[in-house]
Amino acid sequence: MTEAAPQEAALSEEELRTLDAHWRAANYLAAGQIYLMANPLLTEPLRPEHIKPRLLGHWGTSPGLNLVYTHLNRVIKARGLDALCVWGPGHGGPAVLAGSWLEGSYSETYPDISRDGAGMELLFRQFSFPGGVPSHVAPETPGSIHEGGELGYSLAHAYGAAFDNPDLLVTCVIGDGEAETGPLAASWHSDKFLDPVHDGAVLPVLHLNGYKIANPTVLSRIPESELDALLRGYGHEPLYVTGEDPAQVHRALAAALDDALDRIAQMQRGAREEGITERVHWPMIVLRTPKGWTGPAEVDGVPVEGTWRAHQVPLPGVRENPAHLRQLEQWLRSYRPEELFGPDGRPSADVLACVPEGDRRLGSNPHANGGVLLRDLPLPPLDTFAVAVDKPGTALHEPTRVLGDLLEQVMEDTRERRDFRLVGPDETASNRLQAVFDASGKAWQAEVLPVDEHLSRHGRVLEILSEHLCQGWLEGYLLTGRHGLFSCYEAFVHIVDSMVNQHIKWLKTSRQLTWRAPIASLNYLLTSHVWRQDHNGFSHQDPGFVDHVLNKSPEVVRVYLPPDANTLLSVADHVLRSRDYVNVVVAGKQPCFDWLTMDQARAHCARGAGIWEWAGTENGAEPDVVLACAGDVPTQEVLAAAQLLRTHLPELAVRVVNVVDMTRLLPHEEHPHGMPDFEYDGLFTTDKPVIFAYHGYPWLIHRLAYRRTGHANLHVRGYKESGTTTTPFDMVVRNDLDRYRLVMDVIDRVPGLAVRAAAVRQTMADARSRHHDWIREHGMDLPEVAEWTWGG
Amino acid sequence: MTEAAPQEAALSEEELRTLDAHWRAANYLAAGQIYLMANPLLTEPLRPEHIKPRLLGHWGTSPGLNLVYTHLNRVIKARGLDALCVWGPGHGGPAVLAGSWLEGSYSETYPDISRDGAGMELLFRQFSFPGGVPSHVAPETPGSIHEGGELGYSLAHAYGAAFDNPDLLVTCVIGDGEAETGPLAASWHSDKFLDPVHDGAVLPVLHLNGYKIANPTVLSRIPESELDALLRGYGHEPLYVTGEDPAQVHRALAAALDDALDRIAQMQRGAREEGITERVHWPMIVLRTPKGWTGPAEVDGVPVEGTWRAHQVPLPGVRENPAHLRQLEQWLRSYRPEELFGPDGRPSADVLACVPEGDRRLGSNPHANGGVLLRDLPLPPLDTFAVAVDKPGTALHEPTRVLGDLLEQVMEDTRERRDFRLVGPDETASNRLQAVFDASGKAWQAEVLPVDEHLSRHGRVLEILSEHLCQGWLEGYLLTGRHGLFSCYEAFVHIVDSMVNQHIKWLKTSRQLTWRAPIASLNYLLTSHVWRQDHNGFSHQDPGFVDHVLNKSPEVVRVYLPPDANTLLSVADHVLRSRDYVNVVVAGKQPCFDWLTMDQARAHCARGAGIWEWAGTENGAEPDVVLACAGDVPTQEVLAAAQLLRTHLPELAVRVVNVVDMTRLLPHEEHPHGMPDFEYDGLFTTDKPVIFAYHGYPWLIHRLAYRRTGHANLHVRGYKESGTTTTPFDMVVRNDLDRYRLVMDVIDRVPGLAVRAAAVRQTMADARSRHHDWIREHGMDLPEVAEWTWGG
Repeated sequence: MTEAAPQEAALSEEELRTLDAHWRAANYLAAGQIYLMANPLLTEPLRPEHIKPRLLGHWGTSPGLNLVYTHLNRVIKARGLDALCVWGPGHGGPAVLAGSWLEGSYSETYPDISRDGAGMELLFRQFSFPGGVPSHVAPETPGSIHEGGELGYSLAHAYGAAFDNPDLLVTCVIGDGEAETGPLAASWHSDKFLDPVHDGAVLPVLHLNGYKIANPTVLSRIPESELDALLRGYGHEPLYVTGEDPAQVHRALAAALDDALDRIAQMQRGAREEGITERVHWPMIVLRTPKGWTGPAEVDGVPVEGTWRAHQVPLPGVRENPAHLRQLEQWLRSYRPEELFGPDGRPSADVLACVPEGDRRLGSNPHANGGVLLRDLPLPPLDTFAVAVDKPGTALHEPTRVLGDLLEQVMEDTRERRDFRLVGPDETASNRLQAVFDASGKAWQAEVLPVDEHLSRHGRVLEILSEHLCQGWLEGYLLTGRHGLFSCYEAFVHIVDSMVNQHIKWLKTSRQLTWRAPIASLNYLLTSHVWRQDHNGFSHQDPGFVDHVLNKSPEVVRVYLPPDANTLLSVADHVLRSRDYVNVVVAGKQPCFDWLTMDQARAHCARGAGIWEWAGTENGAEPDVVLACAGDVPTQEVLAAAQLLRTHLPELAVRVVNVVDMTRLLPHEEHPHGMPDFEYDGLFTTDKPVIFAYHGYPWLIHRLAYRRTGHANLHVRGYKESGTTTTPFDMVVRNDLDRYRLVMDVIDRVPGLAVRAAAVRQTMADARSRHHDWIREHGMDLPEVAEWTWGG
Repeated sequence: MTEAAPQEAALSEEELRTLDAHWRAANYLAAGQIYLMANPLLTEPLRPEHIKPRLLGHWGTSPGLNLVYTHLNRVIKARGLDALCVWGPGHGGPAVLAGSWLEGSYSETYPDISRDGAGMELLFRQFSFPGGVPSHVAPETPGSIHEGGELGYSLAHAYGAAFDNPDLLVTCVIGDGEAETGPLAASWHSDKFLDPVHDGAVLPVLHLNGYKIANPTVLSRIPESELDALLRGYGHEPLYVTGEDPAQVHRALAAALDDALDRIAQMQRGAREEGITERVHWPMIVLRTPKGWTGPAEVDGVPVEGTWRAHQVPLPGVRENPAHLRQLEQWLRSYRPEELFGPDGRPSADVLACVPEGDRRLGSNPHANGGVLLRDLPLPPLDTFAVAVDKPGTALHEPTRVLGDLLEQVMEDTRERRDFRLVGPDETASNRLQAVFDASGKAWQAEVLPVDEHLSRHGRVLEILSEHLCQGWLEGYLLTGRHGLFSCYEAFVHIVDSMVNQHIKWLKTSRQLTWRAPIASLNYLLTSHVWRQDHNGFSHQDPGFVDHVLNKSPEVVRVYLPPDANTLLSVADHVLRSRDYVNVVVAGKQPCFDWLTMDQARAHCARGAGIWEWAGTENGAEPDVVLACAGDVPTQEVLAAAQLLRTHLPELAVRVVNVVDMTRLLPHEEHPHGMPDFEYDGLFTTDKPVIFAYHGYPWLIHRLAYRRTGHANLHVRGYKESGTTTTPFDMVVRNDLDRYRLVMDVIDRVPGLAVRAAAVRQTMADARSRHHDWIREHGMDLPEVAEWTWGG
């Protein structure tokens, strides 16, 4: 095992003294936030009324986080580093708030919470208090790009922050609880994607405090030789810091940090100046200290410090139990607050000795408020990439392939700026975006063989078979002020349901914080969608991500279903310019009819939903029926149905409505894009049957439109979990979304049709039967379907 | 690195010859499934019409899977093993189908697909063909408990199958693509939870074929020393098999398998007979062979075998391109089918030499059709655990704690049978189920310290900080015929959204297969729910899992929201008896009023929804308004609102309806539990205002009930993403679900109220204002709320 360099060299006695003062001050402030609402400086003996009525928060991880904050301060100041820290054990909110308050960044962000006794009292009181701040590291926390509530994503966020930030050091504290999660376990391999030339450094600090909520952790209970093998297997050079004596740990951690940073500097120099191209084995630190360190050793006769019992509030009964109250006072006084803070509550010079200045403070680093660094993406004119459409529905393009050309240009135009990344789980080419490889290769630091294509040490396309890493990397990249797009198989984006929840929550909150500048939106391109899983079948069929995100804050979420190539271009242009949203774009990669010219597409996408006059048979009067559609395959089926109706029942006035922006269906009061009733009624009528062919689960349309006047006339077709490996048209037939079924739906719902309609209905039913027989015989779709084009 | 034992010892020349014959036969069959619809034995030259019109499937992984199948056959037969195999690269469906067809289990399961030439033609034709079988390993595949479409879960499934199956060997083939996923990366640590005494063995086979869809894989491109460190860091003893010469690889794999199985047998003997309690370092195999091995080396001048281009269909143009057709024929004939199959198409004696018999065949092992092994869970009478309820709403219990006592008894009553497991991400005690520890400890094979509690080498409670592993383990356990419960924080169950999708799809399909016996349902207990995240706030608040599962097949999904302790007992009893469902039970862990006696609870849960006459103010006539509720916190607020109405507007006829089973709100045609309209109308009326207080996102209720006559009168309150760290009552106020708001809703919606109602409304609004001031001052809820009890 690699021991850190000789420890005595790292710190002078004076440095040790002042570092320890900072750490004690931070520990004092962390405990104070959990317990106190008055008497913050202990200027009088603690009384029950100084104690908060509800004791909330997580003490256990806080001393370790404080220790890292203290020591990062030292090296940032000593080396003039530009550094960010991702706090994986984000439950330890009190620690990060303490560090920020001590360095002054907190009071600059929140002037009410001044860096003095009055401010300290407010700092304590607001913590986990109604109207105050959350208990975790959160958007409200200066210096953070990471919400610590849901565990698993810290290391991926750290890598995302480091990509294309060559001068940045991103330290990432990983709790040993978090280390058990899948996303974190996979994140260790991110080092194979970090370019030592154009990216910054990530310094993982695996904090083994031994326990989760109620159990020991796996990594703290395997032999150190096994742990060492594991971390070397991840590609790291681990440095170990173990102890419970503060002075010894201070020395060891300082030495380990110096060692790690020296190595990082040397590796970066080698790659950047000496042309070394061998893969880098980055250092990391294993920090093994007790959970709830410096807190109560025992409470009511059972061990607390160093055990899982220190996880939340180690002394729970202080308001009612005088012995607990005394123990709390002893604990708080053990930090010797009178040495740490002046009578006015300001931190002493010793405490502040290690603190860096200005934007170098962890709570002030602009990378942690990425919007302030964000530049508009250079987006080329769409007309260059648009497909020509002389007549709708006659030529075919693969929409994502057309988009790929646009993305190639964006990649090209950001070659020097390096502030755009495309991420995806091994699917960029499968999703037909491979044109981007002409402008940037795929990031790859591991071995390359002659047969490989498009791998590059400096590439900005990120591909790994982990949706979690794609999402986590991109979040970290966006939160530090850059741009990106995540292309994903539609069904498997559910893998990151929980991550997108947390990102939406982050955006919802950060939008309310005036000091946080808007960041680029998180853009999903969901393709290889439910209707075209020819190779893969049922396991790859799930359109429910749209439903999932639409449960979330309307000010953040947007959903687009462009029906063809040009509308996809228009939507992509829009989402890449947007800020502070999560945009979900669902579009096909298979050949799809071109319906709209670029100008028409722009106008249609700007409206978000509109009547396609050319596709219907209205003649100025009210329609008899509305055929609505959202999504590429439903649009094709609706247009085919409209054509069948024109042929078979030409007297019927059919209106075709296409919806691109799903939130337009919501009431105006419920979503900023929602239509007022008059507009909805103008499109869909108030009393005519509406047959709506939707890409996903049909009830979503009802959930969006149930308040509309005409809702009782709304009949939705969509995916209803009937899937397998079969032909494209069989998929729509199985789910009753096919053209023949839609015509039958119209006939079943429009009153007063000609007698002839019954025969037409039978013709449609016959066509469905013929389809069933045909595919079982031939294994492919009926020629009249496979070769259909729009001739309406 | 550990090399396998001397290779020449493992196989005789005769064995080598017959094993290779089996492998070649399987490769032939795998390729045949992808390409052929006629001429299966190549009795005539290949012509375009023998080729399927659409070429679908995944060749790349198939030869490797075939190799493992072949060699497992050998060791099963030689050692009389009871063995299961989990095929992680499940895209290689053709391989597993080939193995099953060769051994005869396929034809026994599907008699139409006989083990002869006619059956071979059908086997080929049905693959990825409309009306046929999916391209992946799936429920339709004999011997499989694993759908290979979504990657990441194979190793967790394997461990789940091995738990409490001491005589079972579970081999798990892990693709190097899958190995990049988070869930798989975390799964390696499952070895710290596998009891060598009571559990079976898991033998991971990491198959490095080098490529994913379009990229090299991380683990195939790091130095073998680094890979070796990684696998040892996971706790394994790796054995390496590398090559591309079939004979050499056959010998090496046979030797490695013998070595691994000898070690496993020795370790199990040590733990079971010799009392060895040291942690076991289980062997595993690293198998490095080319992707698409034995397929076309080059196509159109570019390398295919051994590259990502072999992933799906290596020769795409065979129907149109005569050169490709010739190349396919050469490829197929390279296996020398005339040696492998008789003129009638039956496999030759050589091919079948390695195949085991009867239930020992991989496709016939009963563990892979777990329902046939399933026994009813011994469930104790509920009255033993019921809480006494003299008067509703006066005493409080923590529902999950009461459930914990029941689960303790189940754990106790399965002590010998060992067919029940409780899984959770470090939250069993946090979720107040810790009574179970009196009957079983927590499984733990790593180091134990004196301070630890409830850890046990033989425990059946599984706790790791990974929802993915909890889910994967439990799925594997259930699919092999046992029972279990997954307790989880409500918000974080979204982490497994995608996994539950796949399990529901599995159940939907397996229910249609008569040969698959029903298995125990997958039961979620979601607690620490949205309304009571006092410590954790916004990041821990998400009730959307219910919405997620309700998008899925209605024949599989069930959702229950018991409002108190006794109803939770009744629901738990029900779900633990059920089969082939995914049951989602949402219940609180915080003190909650007892509303129903055990008998009342049973009757109420049997109905799923009902009127609580004692809570309302109806007097035989139609009510003026319906107050409906679902969930513990909404129920409390509705009852408090009913009480306020009784006090302030006693003349108002209020009906209180509680819903336990959410799917009862659906129309009868859409869900087996759905109510017919007459029943819905009888509960909710067709024309009276219904104020519905729901636990989760309010629009879910509209999505369920939009077809009902009275839908226009339905007004739903629920969680609308307004959360933070605050008091319990503030949470309901923030989301407009509080008693005062509900009374205001009633007043706003019931026509013709007394003039006095306006004053009552103002009283309610004042109470909300008082609340706001109070919590900001005191940090806790208003006494009249905190101390409220039902006195209606």
